[in-house]
Amino acid sequence: MTARNAVRDDFPVLRREFDGQSISYLDNAATTLKPRPVIRAITEYYETNGANIHRGKHRLSEEASDAYEGARVVIARHLGAAANEVVLLRNTTEALNLVAGGLDLPPDARVVGCLDAHHSQLLPWRRVGQLELTRLDEHGRLDRDHFRTLLRGRPHVVALTHCSNVTGVVHPVAELVAEIRAACDAVIVLDAAQSLPHQRIDVQELDVDFMAFSMHKMLGPTGVGVLFGRSERLARLRPASVGGGMVDWVDLDGSVDRRIPYRFEAGTPAIASIIGSAAAIRYLEAQDTPERHRHAQELGAALIGGAVARPGVRLIGPPDSTDRIALVSLRLDDSIPTGEVARLLSDSYGYMVRSGHMCAQPLVSGMAGGEVLRVAAYLYNDVSEIEGFYQALDELVSWIAPTAAMEGKLA
Amino acid sequence: MTARNAVRDDFPVLRREFDGQSISYLDNAATTLKPRPVIRAITEYYETNGANIHRGKHRLSEEASDAYEGARVVIARHLGAAANEVVLLRNTTEALNLVAGGLDLPPDARVVGCLDAHHSQLLPWRRVGQLELTRLDEHGRLDRDHFRTLLRGRPHVVALTHCSNVTGVVHPVAELVAEIRAACDAVIVLDAAQSLPHQRIDVQELDVDFMAFSMHKMLGPTGVGVLFGRSERLARLRPASVGGGMVDWVDLDGSVDRRIPYRFEAGTPAIASIIGSAAAIRYLEAQDTPERHRHAQELGAALIGGAVARPGVRLIGPPDSTDRIALVSLRLDDSIPTGEVARLLSDSYGYMVRSGHMCAQPLVSGMAGGEVLRVAAYLYNDVSEIEGFYQALDELVSWIAPTAAMEGKLA
Repeated sequence: MTARNAVRDDFPVLRREFDGQSISYLDNAATTLKPRPVIRAITEYYETNGANIHRGKHRLSEEASDAYEGARVVIARHLGAAANEVVLLRNTTEALNLVAGGLDLPPDARVVGCLDAHHSQLLPWRRVGQLELTRLDEHGRLDRDHFRTLLRGRPHVVALTHCSNVTGVVHPVAELVAEIRAACDAVIVLDAAQSLPHQRIDVQELDVDFMAFSMHKMLGPTGVGVLFGRSERLARLRPASVGGGMVDWVDLDGSVDRRIPYRFEAGTPAIASIIGSAAAIRYLEAQDTPERHRHAQELGAALIGGAVARPGVRLIGPPDSTDRIALVSLRLDDSIPTGEVARLLSDSYGYMVRSGHMCAQPLVSGMAGGEVLRVAAYLYNDVSEIEGFYQALDELVSWIAPTAAMEGKLA
Repeated sequence: MTARNAVRDDFPVLRREFDGQSISYLDNAATTLKPRPVIRAITEYYETNGANIHRGKHRLSEEASDAYEGARVVIARHLGAAANEVVLLRNTTEALNLVAGGLDLPPDARVVGCLDAHHSQLLPWRRVGQLELTRLDEHGRLDRDHFRTLLRGRPHVVALTHCSNVTGVVHPVAELVAEIRAACDAVIVLDAAQSLPHQRIDVQELDVDFMAFSMHKMLGPTGVGVLFGRSERLARLRPASVGGGMVDWVDLDGSVDRRIPYRFEAGTPAIASIIGSAAAIRYLEAQDTPERHRHAQELGAALIGGAVARPGVRLIGPPDSTDRIALVSLRLDDSIPTGEVARLLSDSYGYMVRSGHMCAQPLVSGMAGGEVLRVAAYLYNDVSEIEGFYQALDELVSWIAPTAAMEGKLA
């Protein structure tokens, strides 16, 4: 048995027990748990400050503004961006909607997407343009020929998914961006919600125009989504909301917008959660070590190995660890109700995994033909938990399958 | 001297000292401080749960969903609304933008507003229609004749401000609504950000179509705004954002929106802060006593009395306590830099007040002719703090005014 994972102690939720039994949190693609420094940063703001930002000259307001803008700088540095290229919003969905709506595309604008996009990178584009989805191979990797064909249509926008929340595949975004830049002058919008929690991304190096992600999927508070936008792109984007805090001047006839990024942050923001986000970034950066990457590889290998070894389980995604995160989606036998399995895994065994269509219904319908069970590991998980999960799944399936088969016969 | 205000102990920020001196927080119209039960509710979610809501079948997700939807019920009950009429957003601004954008008004739609509207109740309407503002009298009360004249133009929308964040005037919304209903079939949208923290509102009784407010101005966490909408109105409102969590079904050709209010809550919401909002509502409801209302009256009278008694100070708002909250905006002599006074009040005396145009620039420019100093009290403040504030202001003005006059002579 390997040495105990030291970071576990930083996550208070992991001390919880259900019916005297410890729990195993493996729903990390939906959201991650929060370490103590993040919780402490939020509590500290509320206990020692609590004031509003920007417009106040008093000391509490200035402290709050400093902490809020300091968080923006921490996030920007993490991405290799300038602070004014970082817009602080609610979630990835809001960020992608802001871009889709704010580009003011002509109604017939062509948008190239990916079949494994999350709904938040599908529906906003479908609403504003003609969305065409790049096909995938049987394992969920992009069909590069099809992608090139779609680029020949000279799309206005290419909406990329860095990492699928269903297959765990990390697409070769640097190569795709090079192909796009060579083929057309499309605006490149990257959904990094599932990739950034697992790897560093330098937005300059990657050469994307916009990138969106959510802090809650990378140890941060709920209610914070980030939009990176290259300053010249942001400067031409139309704000989704107008109101206080985003204008320099208002009179009876008109108003003057503040400079970027403030013009996109109307009203009082989620001050406490944004301050907590800086603590999350700092924690993550401290974990950016070769050991952690090796650990992530081990978790991924255990997840894939367990799936491949089980004939009753179909792995939705590649059967190898190359270019993917520690996440597997499993399709069980059609006779087995996936949601019920997820519930029993939680209530009888303490394993928290997700079931359903993962907000990526076109992909899950196409590749799995129905609901999947998704197991997503993160830095506080151990290989022993993955093994335990598969043992529990085996037990459950051995009970449920005959029952389901019998019900089928009786029906 | 009156007995010490018992609720003060619930607000940890009030224990803070600057240079060994206690602080007085009088910037409550910008945001209020948070009591321990609110901070505890947030911390508890992060320390014992941390999971995402809705789409998970595991126990942590179900607990989180229960707490999240439970908060919606607590908020709905507080308003006399049904739970599906409560949309959980980021702030009042976002709520008002959602309504303005979601009504899909014709470009020439007439909207009647008020001159004392916050920018968040001005700019969204100016963007989607032809906004006409009801005039005010010299004290900031609505010109009812002008309002009736504007209603005769049969506006599509009447955007009301319940309470001005500059004058503190609480407008007679029930009467205004009756006049609107008699005159036309306008959609009535109420900004209650400054009123709901001070008084109960029953949305059925008040008969408004939409109402927006922010939890952070009523003891709740930052990053939570609420939109109440009558269910038949909400059902016809276009969502501002599309993505995960707001659709029932997505395929390659289209999608089906979830029912209200979920179709307006795309992506992962501010789970922790929304759970904390329920604690804020419970705390506020426990404070809804005759003693508290008497206390608020005393605070308001002290604020107004102090302003009226000082010849060097011009009160922007009515010189009496009728129909207003415990808030005053003060215009100092033109020679005195208001922002500097606010800074000195904080740094030398410990009084946190706001200076500027209060995100209500047309009103402040018109009534005050320049920046104002705003003093806004709340339930944890004492009359002695108001007295102390005015003494500090007197001292400061006695120092600054001659200096400013001398600089004027030298210039």
